[in-house]
Amino acid sequence: MKISILGGGGFLGRRIAAKLAAEGNLGGRAVTGLTLLDMAPPPAIAAPFPVTCLGGDVVDLPPAAIPVDTDLVFHLAAVVSAQAEADYDLGRRVNLRGTDAVIDACRALPKPPRVVFTSSVASFSGGQGAMLADDARQVPANSYGAQKAAAELILADASRRGFIDAVTIRLPTVVVRPGRPNRAASGFFSGIIREPLLGLETDLPVPDDFAVWICSPRRATDWLLHAGAMDSRPLGLDRSLTPPGLSVTVGQMLAALDQVHPGASALVRRVEDRAIADIVAGWPSGFTPVRAPALGFAAHESLVDLVHAFVADDLVATRLDRGLAA
Amino acid sequence: MKISILGGGGFLGRRIAAKLAAEGNLGGRAVTGLTLLDMAPPPAIAAPFPVTCLGGDVVDLPPAAIPVDTDLVFHLAAVVSAQAEADYDLGRRVNLRGTDAVIDACRALPKPPRVVFTSSVASFSGGQGAMLADDARQVPANSYGAQKAAAELILADASRRGFIDAVTIRLPTVVVRPGRPNRAASGFFSGIIREPLLGLETDLPVPDDFAVWICSPRRATDWLLHAGAMDSRPLGLDRSLTPPGLSVTVGQMLAALDQVHPGASALVRRVEDRAIADIVAGWPSGFTPVRAPALGFAAHESLVDLVHAFVADDLVATRLDRGLAA
Repeated sequence: MKISILGGGGFLGRRIAAKLAAEGNLGGRAVTGLTLLDMAPPPAIAAPFPVTCLGGDVVDLPPAAIPVDTDLVFHLAAVVSAQAEADYDLGRRVNLRGTDAVIDACRALPKPPRVVFTSSVASFSGGQGAMLADDARQVPANSYGAQKAAAELILADASRRGFIDAVTIRLPTVVVRPGRPNRAASGFFSGIIREPLLGLETDLPVPDDFAVWICSPRRATDWLLHAGAMDSRPLGLDRSLTPPGLSVTVGQMLAALDQVHPGASALVRRVEDRAIADIVAGWPSGFTPVRAPALGFAAHESLVDLVHAFVADDLVATRLDRGLAA
Repeated sequence: MKISILGGGGFLGRRIAAKLAAEGNLGGRAVTGLTLLDMAPPPAIAAPFPVTCLGGDVVDLPPAAIPVDTDLVFHLAAVVSAQAEADYDLGRRVNLRGTDAVIDACRALPKPPRVVFTSSVASFSGGQGAMLADDARQVPANSYGAQKAAAELILADASRRGFIDAVTIRLPTVVVRPGRPNRAASGFFSGIIREPLLGLETDLPVPDDFAVWICSPRRATDWLLHAGAMDSRPLGLDRSLTPPGLSVTVGQMLAALDQVHPGASALVRRVEDRAIADIVAGWPSGFTPVRAPALGFAAHESLVDLVHAFVADDLVATRLDRGLAA
C-alpha cells in the first residue's frame, strides 16, 4: 500500500514513518511507498520501501504529495493551539483550507483513499469534573478546537459522499513530549515529567488535584496506525473517534515520576500562573469512550509505563538535542 | 440601528425586511437603514428608512453590503439542501467561504455587529423517534447540514474572539412555503397543505404517522428578529439555539387542513416514493428545546393557526403567482 503523511516532519508524523519503516507493513499489507510532506522537506529515513520527502504548503498541495495510487493519507498538517489563537487567518487557512485541499486532491484519485485525521481534546470544553461520552457536543473554547471540529464535519461529509474514507482520531494531550519546553498552554504536563528526568527544575501552574486527559506518544502512534488499517464500515456517518486515553491528576503523574526516578518530583515548583490555569481549566478532565475500544483501539498503558517509555524512547535524544551532559 | 440582510431576496429575507419596514424598529430601537443583498438585487420596498438593494456574491461580498456602521447582519445566503448535494463545490463555496467572507467583512468594522445565522434541522440526524436535546451532537447526513454545522462552529469562534456577536437559529422545516412545488425533499410537507387549498391534487410519499419538526414562516421570521434584538450574553460559548418548533405527524397536519377547509385532504394521494422517504427518514422527528424558550423565543402556534396563517398571508399571492383562478 502507498501511504502519504502530510505533516510528516512533525512529532507524530516522524513516529508513524519510523514505525512503518521498521515494520514494512500496515495491518498485514506491505507498504510499497511512503511520501512525507512538510513545510520543509522532512529528513530522509531508511525503509524497506521507497520514501519521498517533499517540502510544500498543504493548502497549495503539490500533486506529488498524494500520488495517484495512494491508499492511505495521514493528514496531520495543522497550525496548533497557541498559534491558531495568535493568528486567526493562519489557523483558518491551514486547518480549514488545508483540509479542503486534502479532500480535493483525494477526490481526484481513481480510488478514494483512507484519510486519517487528527482532531483534539481541545475541540471540547466542560472543564474540571466533565467526563464526556462519545456523543458529547463539541463546544470549543479556542480557534484551533473550532477549526478541528469543523474539519471533522467536512471530512465526514466528504466520506459520506465517497470522496475519501475518513477516520478522525481526537487525540488527548500527548505526554511526554520530547525536546524543549514550548509555549503551548499544555506544555507543562510534559514538562513536569521531562524536565526533572533531565535534572532540571520546572514550574507547575495548577494544583496537584488538577485532572487532564492524556496519552503517550507510543499510544498516539499506535492509534493512528490502527485508524489507517481498521475496517471503517462500522463507523457509519460519524467518522470521529475518541480513543481510550487516561484521565489522571497532576499528583498521580508526579507519583509515577517518583516511582521511576525516586525524588525527581522535588524539582517541580508550584508556581501559580492564572493565564495558563484559565486556559487548561476549560478542557474536560476526561472521556468515557466506548466506541473506539470496541473498534480495536488499544487501552492505554499505566502512567508508570508511560514514564518508562519516555526514558526508553526519548530521554537520551532530548538530552543530546538540548546540549545537556549525559 | 443599521441592518443588512444577506440573502435579502429569499423567502425569509423578504419577510424580515417587510416586517422591519412595517414596524420601523427592532426591539425598541429605530431602524435607520436597511441593505438587502442577493445574487440579483432584491426588489425595492417601501419603508420609513432608507433601503439599499444590491446584487452580488456573498463570497466576494461588495463592501456596501455591510456598511461601516452596521449593527445587525442577517446572514441567510445559502445554497440549500438539494443543490448542495448536487453540487459539492458550490455548496462549500457559498455555505463555508461565504460565511468566512461575512466574518471578514464584520471584523473590519469598528464595532462588531450582531450576526444572525440560519442553520437547520438538516444538520442533525437520528430519524423517526429521535427527540433531540439542546446539547445533541450534530451528525449530518447531507452536505448542506455538514456545511451549516461547520459554519456554526466558525461563527461561534469568531464571536468568542470578538469579531462578531453571533446568534445561530437552527430552523425547522418551514411549512407552509408559498409559491410553487419545488424539488426539495421536504417540499411535500408544505405541498400537502398548500396544494389542496389551491384545489390541486398532491402526492404524499410517507405514511400518515411520519413525524417531522416544523415551524411556520411567521414564527421563523419572529425568531430571527428576536435573535437580532435579544441580549446575547447568556449564550456564552454556545451561540446556537434550537427554537421551539412543532413535532407533528403528517396525519395531524392533514387533520388541521380539514379543520380549516373541510374535505381538502381528499386531494392528497398516498404515493410511495422511496427516494424521498429515505432522505427525510434520516431527520430527527423533533427536539426538546429548553434554552431558546428560556431566552424569550416564542412558543409555536397550533397547527390549525399555522394553516390559517398561510390562508391569510400567502394563499392569494400564491394563486396569482401561479396563474390560478381566484
